[in-house]
Amino acid sequence: MFTYQPPLKDIQFVLSDLLNATEVLNQIPAFAEIDDGLMLQVVEEAGRFASEVLFPLNAVGDREGAQYAEGKVKTPTGFAAAYRQFCEAGWPALACDPEYGGQGLPNTLNSVLYEMLSATNHAWTMFPGLLHGAYACLHRHASVELKTRYLPKIISGEWLATMCLTEANAGSDLGLLRTKAVPQPDGSYLISGNKIFISGGEQDMTDNIVHLVLARLPDAPAGSKGISLFLVPKFLPQDEALGERNAVQCTGIEHKMGIHGSPTCSMQFDQARGWLVGEPNHGLAAMFVMMNAARLAVGINGVAIAETSYQNSLAYAQERLQMRAVNRPAERKGEAADPIIMHPAVQRLLMTQRAYLEGGRMLTYWNALLLDNAEHHPDAAVRKSADEQLALMTPIIKSMLTEQGFQGASQALQVYGGHGYISETGIEQYLRDARITMVYEGTNEIQAVDLLMRKIIGDGGQRLEHFLEGVETAAQQHHSGPFAHYAGTLLSLAQRIRHCAGDIAKASASHPELPYTIASEMLRLVGHCALAWLWLRAADTAHRNHNSDPAFHQEKLSTADYYYSFVLPETQQLLSVIEGCLHEAASGKRPAYLSNAIAHASRAS
Amino acid sequence: MFTYQPPLKDIQFVLSDLLNATEVLNQIPAFAEIDDGLMLQVVEEAGRFASEVLFPLNAVGDREGAQYAEGKVKTPTGFAAAYRQFCEAGWPALACDPEYGGQGLPNTLNSVLYEMLSATNHAWTMFPGLLHGAYACLHRHASVELKTRYLPKIISGEWLATMCLTEANAGSDLGLLRTKAVPQPDGSYLISGNKIFISGGEQDMTDNIVHLVLARLPDAPAGSKGISLFLVPKFLPQDEALGERNAVQCTGIEHKMGIHGSPTCSMQFDQARGWLVGEPNHGLAAMFVMMNAARLAVGINGVAIAETSYQNSLAYAQERLQMRAVNRPAERKGEAADPIIMHPAVQRLLMTQRAYLEGGRMLTYWNALLLDNAEHHPDAAVRKSADEQLALMTPIIKSMLTEQGFQGASQALQVYGGHGYISETGIEQYLRDARITMVYEGTNEIQAVDLLMRKIIGDGGQRLEHFLEGVETAAQQHHSGPFAHYAGTLLSLAQRIRHCAGDIAKASASHPELPYTIASEMLRLVGHCALAWLWLRAADTAHRNHNSDPAFHQEKLSTADYYYSFVLPETQQLLSVIEGCLHEAASGKRPAYLSNAIAHASRAS
Repeated sequence: MFTYQPPLKDIQFVLSDLLNATEVLNQIPAFAEIDDGLMLQVVEEAGRFASEVLFPLNAVGDREGAQYAEGKVKTPTGFAAAYRQFCEAGWPALACDPEYGGQGLPNTLNSVLYEMLSATNHAWTMFPGLLHGAYACLHRHASVELKTRYLPKIISGEWLATMCLTEANAGSDLGLLRTKAVPQPDGSYLISGNKIFISGGEQDMTDNIVHLVLARLPDAPAGSKGISLFLVPKFLPQDEALGERNAVQCTGIEHKMGIHGSPTCSMQFDQARGWLVGEPNHGLAAMFVMMNAARLAVGINGVAIAETSYQNSLAYAQERLQMRAVNRPAERKGEAADPIIMHPAVQRLLMTQRAYLEGGRMLTYWNALLLDNAEHHPDAAVRKSADEQLALMTPIIKSMLTEQGFQGASQALQVYGGHGYISETGIEQYLRDARITMVYEGTNEIQAVDLLMRKIIGDGGQRLEHFLEGVETAAQQHHSGPFAHYAGTLLSLAQRIRHCAGDIAKASASHPELPYTIASEMLRLVGHCALAWLWLRAADTAHRNHNSDPAFHQEKLSTADYYYSFVLPETQQLLSVIEGCLHEAASGKRPAYLSNAIAHASRAS
Repeated sequence: MFTYQPPLKDIQFVLSDLLNATEVLNQIPAFAEIDDGLMLQVVEEAGRFASEVLFPLNAVGDREGAQYAEGKVKTPTGFAAAYRQFCEAGWPALACDPEYGGQGLPNTLNSVLYEMLSATNHAWTMFPGLLHGAYACLHRHASVELKTRYLPKIISGEWLATMCLTEANAGSDLGLLRTKAVPQPDGSYLISGNKIFISGGEQDMTDNIVHLVLARLPDAPAGSKGISLFLVPKFLPQDEALGERNAVQCTGIEHKMGIHGSPTCSMQFDQARGWLVGEPNHGLAAMFVMMNAARLAVGINGVAIAETSYQNSLAYAQERLQMRAVNRPAERKGEAADPIIMHPAVQRLLMTQRAYLEGGRMLTYWNALLLDNAEHHPDAAVRKSADEQLALMTPIIKSMLTEQGFQGASQALQVYGGHGYISETGIEQYLRDARITMVYEGTNEIQAVDLLMRKIIGDGGQRLEHFLEGVETAAQQHHSGPFAHYAGTLLSLAQRIRHCAGDIAKASASHPELPYTIASEMLRLVGHCALAWLWLRAADTAHRNHNSDPAFHQEKLSTADYYYSFVLPETQQLLSVIEGCLHEAASGKRPAYLSNAIAHASRAS
């Protein structure tokens, strides 16, 4: 029986004990009133909604899928009703501006909410997930008139939203897009073109749909500097009612590996009426401003999938009896077989999932707090510092945690053995659903390039240095005591990362392809440094609070130990690759990995 | 457009240039007549059948799936016709005993055949794949009477076969199985019980099905020493015709993540008539005798999936235009975007796939030759030596190459970006199909335990030592020359593996769980040593033959370089984990990874 228990204890541990979230948030005037009681109440209610309403619809959504016929899309049984319940409870408004009907609560709580939504029903969560991004984009860039007309409907959830970016020939490279926007005398625009991969482009859950569309003005420069952002509603609002149907329609939906319940639409805009959002030709910038939040959300997606996968594989491992354990306890003598959780190979599969997912939770909640600081803190210096840390961590969170969402679901499937491959068991859906997270919102490879080229080399290494110094300060506080061995490992890792980053930046002058070649290794290296730093803090927190809940805190200490012993050694591999490439580059000759292997990715056969 | 081109050039390179397969096989009297021309002809014809007949049915099989109704199973459109064509061409008989109608060709050729079948249609290949295992088992263990009656029908492909091992409570641990066999006065047995996960347990492709069933005799001892093997036909043969329907029926099929075209059946035996194969209570041994061949076949499955995945992601990367490359050639100045193969991140995804799959091909063909030697060589010492190398390599091949089949398909999907997640593209089916290979024929975790406990510690390290000495001898031949740096890396790796294995064996006396805990790392470590050794040989072969086909051989050299620079460094991670655990064990205290992390895989929340 596949289940989901909201991991309230671990969420509490990270929010309250590790990150002192309430205290941090109280520094922000808008959040001055928030207390632990309110936080807990919201988290508990979100957990109830996710586990009781969404989770039972997850397998249904996979089985039925969204169905397309003649321009209309039918969502799976129960999806629309669950969405109504979601809106009635006020969830879409949680972290939105009170001026437009929002509840004005922090992003941090919204992140916890979305972790639990994604953990229980990834496909369904695609609908409101896009809504919040659209809200953030309009709130920042739209005119007062557009905001007044659209934001209240979006915040209440009455209208859902989409992001219409991708075209058949423009995916990672939006600069290639061709959709046109022609200005009209009344200040509106007529939008024409075809978009693909539009999640929720058509559905039967809301009366209206607000499309955010990237398109080119007639006089726009070529490439990414000639893209503007438009708001294009499915129905043109008239006073308080819905007016004319706009010339935008869904021409089909994709059959996909997973998230079957989320319709991935092809959209045709045929002189559809729209309104400019933000400045002409600055559409990408307007979109990218909410990138940190959106990519953080995808990383949370990865943690969420890993959590449900772990919970279920753990429960199965405790029940399933196969083979006798090497160290079986005396009381099991005479039994034909032991629970498979007693076998080290199964323990390894479980602990690897757990070390990544609980580390991922620390990383995402920390960054959600940074996002609140970046958006709301009264002190500009704090805002700036938070924003820069966030910029550095965002590609790591997106890439590393979605990779682990997928690998974690695969590890969980492995615990089930042959039973895991059967649809009825439930885990294979999570594995299929997880796979999209490595691709959408910028592929994981693009995240790595973003990290190394823009966030590290791009600012002369300042953001990275700031991060490493924070890590080193934390490590130095543990130069003696029970975690001195963690601190030593962490200090040496930080130092080697510093050297690598410096050497890569230097070498890139003569070997411009070098950073692109090892960007993925650098991403995981810095990511492990962040996880190791958080696991050190978690161990310290668990150690200090040990007596308040010995079993919970002992497991936290054990998981930290596992992370350092079995997971962190990946850094040895990463460093070996990176330092090997740097060594070749330093030798002066065109490195072998460029002149040979990589240049020959073709195949003479 | 998803395609498959038989990789004839690479197959030829491995068989002829690298392994001198013809020369090796000619040492065996049964294969004395084989020449390069015959080998090539068989390989080319197999490639044609796979690419022209099977490949077009692959997506159909996934979409339609096998369908169950009232005890009957309908296979997907075209599956039965393709199977008839397969039999008419004589493929089932390829590596079978001429005494019963076989063609008497080597396992090596059968391995190449099955690589191409799996590469083009994994689900379809499940049917004849089991056939060969059943043939091998009966050929070795069945009475002359059973062989005379059944083998010709199996070898011709007229009747398909199944392996009925798993029960709901007995998967990895077959010792728990409950199916009963009651002896009858006429020497037959009546079999009663329920089996699950029986591939091809029912189908509409052949008139009869030969089930090989594990069951317990009434007086059998408990556990795995009380299991016997029985042959249970769907229809009892009578003279040359089919007689009475036997009391075995399919009660349902599973909905699965992938291989939809292969029916995974629940089977009910209700006093079904069967005949003992081999000795009473030695059924597991009879089954396991063909384990090396079966697990080699699953490893080949992994290589096959990786090959098709690589081919298609390579073709897509050459066509798809997105972003400008850092080092764009002068002739592309002015183009809006470059083929994504020019981006290092995409090159890395492609080259990683390629290094593993071409390495995997070398490893599997080498082992297929060992299998021919082990089964057919006239010299008992050669047979024994081949058998022992094969025993050592088999769990590595099964585990490491299926892992890479899955990861390779995932890397290929990543090259496609969002398009890879769409079913129509084709790659997501390969990813789903691939996932079963890590689970079936013994989970990959069980392979690792088999390797370390039985194949390494179990014989006092002799097999491993023999392998390492061979590797070292090869490396020493390159202590100077163009591959001296590979040789140095390889020598040091072999030495560290030797030390690890010795230390693990010693430590296991006081820490019996230790080897089980790090078995997966040891498997990959020895696996990388084998791959690195083969890549050294491949580089040397390509270097020597360079002028005969400069483009092909230059790419082979480049891929070797890539393997050593970007793939092999995983050994740094593996060694760090293993040596870390050994260090803790040597310190005398109960290691942390046992006392803390692993003991707490439960969750106090």
